Amino acid sequence: MTANIFNFTISATDGAARRGTVSTAHGDIRTPAFMPVGTAATVKGMTPEAVRETGADILLGNTYHLMLRPGAERVGRLGGLHKFMNWERPILTDSGGFQVMSLNELRKIDENGVTFKSHIDGQRFELTPERSMEIQNHLDATITMAFDECTPYPADHETAATSMRRSMRWAKRSSEAFEARQGYGLFGIVQGSTYEDLRLESVNALTDIGFDGYAIGGLAVGEGQEAMFSTLEVTTPAMLADKPRYLMGVGKPDDLVGAVMRGVDMFDCVLPTRSGRNAQAFTRFGTVNMRNARHADDDRPLDELCECPACRNYSRAYLHHLFKAKEILGATLLTWHNLQYYQDIMRGMRAAIEEGSLASYALDFFAAQENGDIPPL
Amino acid sequence: MTANIFNFTISATDGAARRGTVSTAHGDIRTPAFMPVGTAATVKGMTPEAVRETGADILLGNTYHLMLRPGAERVGRLGGLHKFMNWERPILTDSGGFQVMSLNELRKIDENGVTFKSHIDGQRFELTPERSMEIQNHLDATITMAFDECTPYPADHETAATSMRRSMRWAKRSSEAFEARQGYGLFGIVQGSTYEDLRLESVNALTDIGFDGYAIGGLAVGEGQEAMFSTLEVTTPAMLADKPRYLMGVGKPDDLVGAVMRGVDMFDCVLPTRSGRNAQAFTRFGTVNMRNARHADDDRPLDELCECPACRNYSRAYLHHLFKAKEILGATLLTWHNLQYYQDIMRGMRAAIEEGSLASYALDFFAAQENGDIPPL
Ligand SMILES: [Zn+2]
Ligand SMILES: [Zn+2]
Repeated sequence: MTANIFNFTISATDGAARRGTVSTAHGDIRTPAFMPVGTAATVKGMTPEAVRETGADILLGNTYHLMLRPGAERVGRLGGLHKFMNWERPILTDSGGFQVMSLNELRKIDENGVTFKSHIDGQRFELTPERSMEIQNHLDATITMAFDECTPYPADHETAATSMRRSMRWAKRSSEAFEARQGYGLFGIVQGSTYEDLRLESVNALTDIGFDGYAIGGLAVGEGQEAMFSTLEVTTPAMLADKPRYLMGVGKPDDLVGAVMRGVDMFDCVLPTRSGRNAQAFTRFGTVNMRNARHADDDRPLDELCECPACRNYSRAYLHHLFKAKEILGATLLTWHNLQYYQDIMRGMRAAIEEGSLASYALDFFAAQENGDIPPL
Repeated sequence: MTANIFNFTISATDGAARRGTVSTAHGDIRTPAFMPVGTAATVKGMTPEAVRETGADILLGNTYHLMLRPGAERVGRLGGLHKFMNWERPILTDSGGFQVMSLNELRKIDENGVTFKSHIDGQRFELTPERSMEIQNHLDATITMAFDECTPYPADHETAATSMRRSMRWAKRSSEAFEARQGYGLFGIVQGSTYEDLRLESVNALTDIGFDGYAIGGLAVGEGQEAMFSTLEVTTPAMLADKPRYLMGVGKPDDLVGAVMRGVDMFDCVLPTRSGRNAQAFTRFGTVNMRNARHADDDRPLDELCECPACRNYSRAYLHHLFKAKEILGATLLTWHNLQYYQDIMRGMRAAIEEGSLASYALDFFAAQENGDIPPL
């Protein structure tokens, strides 16, 4: 598969939504795509075979976590992240910036980059655009993300502008430091908080540099869905039509549907995995808390139409029991279900875009979510 | 499968060792057999499909845990333990006695049975031979264990005799309370500590009552392997040859080999699962601690000949990383490996008995264990 050139083709559109394929050295990514998060070289609680069974084409790995443990150079010596974690398909790594910036107490930021102390052992590290590219190269990321600052929310216009412009300088340095390899891609990240002018300035700056794809960062950080959608509506139309667009860290099921309708192609989010470990299921009926006592005697599946093992093989009563008893299998099964549901949404949207019926898909989706969970027995 | 009669056939012997098949309402159990422990209706960290892939024919469930949570009557209403936990093959449940007796502070024992307080919420419960049979019936256990007291070790002769004789009276009451169903079996439990005369008295008492199989209880409780083997050597020859023999709570790999050579057919133990969650691997080379830093850069599999996913798909470096990062997948993969290794031992012994080469199998086994783990890179 390593002979593939990294490129993006669009086979259908429906309004602003696009049905596409990203070809990479590690295989194809069907878009719109949801990327499960494999922070520390594992999607928590899942085997890679199970993740693939849900329909995922690509995983996300976290540079910050992996550089600290097991270490990027080590992963490189061991043959790269794909081999290390037994996932031969595409992997996107973030730049480490987002997570380093969240270490309020432990980091110092300047034009060169960020110095910070590891949350594991307090050891001091430096992360710069150049080092981030080097790390993601050691990891053998199929898609490398430019190093940027995720502007905190809320930020006044001047703060947002200053932050975004530094990110654009870092994007340029990232592009220069990135080692081009056939079938591998580098994505730039649009910043600018919720300010239309800054978003457009950022899009133009990145387009001038030239990337294989463009991400939208700095959203889903507390601004609310309405502000997020408004920002998308001014940002995606300005982005190159023939490159994939990736909305970082998003989101809830209705965020995904709304963002695809606004021209987004790729997503990642910890919600399905983290919620799965915390007994919260995402379903066609909205969210369902499996710890709720109303499930204790319920012999029905979580969702009778879902084809994940949690729904095919077990009752709500059993899932409830597993969480009450703090059994690992509860986390595994509900993570599996949530990832399946997220992939089902993406699959449904891909089919709807091909048929030109995305609006009707979305109406059905929101109506079912509104209906809520099936009544207790 | 529900038309099967519960019976035991022996197809080959090699010294005291037997190669047999237990036929049940839920399918066959190839013996010698190792039963993974599924305490709370799940083999911790594993899907039932994964447990089956290792070669397990039968699981063990714990009456004590299941009666408290989710409750035996509830499991019964939900269709029994097989359906509840998605394991259609045979299940053996213990009687609850062993675990209730371990609740030093929380229990009171008399001729009728045991009263105790739940470790979960302090609620008071009573467990008697009759109630234990009723619970195991609700659970739909393929093999029900008679209610007994596991005599603490060490015990003087009088204490051991008193305890064993009460267990024999409870065995009689268990036999009378057990509801016979085609393809289901009830096992009695030999007690008597390490006293030869008491073990023989117990075997005779149980044989007089008549059971579908006979377990040896009260071993692996601190007496050491030598005393355990000595006790087996006087006990198994006195047991009915045409019924399965089950050594409860045993053991380490070398315990299994030694006990099979002394005429034991069935085993259960938490060691492979509990150790797997704690980074300890059982291998052909003895035990290996995956937390040890010497694995950090080791790109070799844990055991290159093992066919479990942990060994087929991952390096020691990756397994080490998972445990350092406290990732669920580490527990899953190492549990999988340990269960695979235990089943490989049982498979190897079954083949060796068929060939009449168990002594040579055992010599090779002990020599490999003595050699220890492969040298660090
Ligand atoms: Zn499901
Ligand atoms: Zn293995």
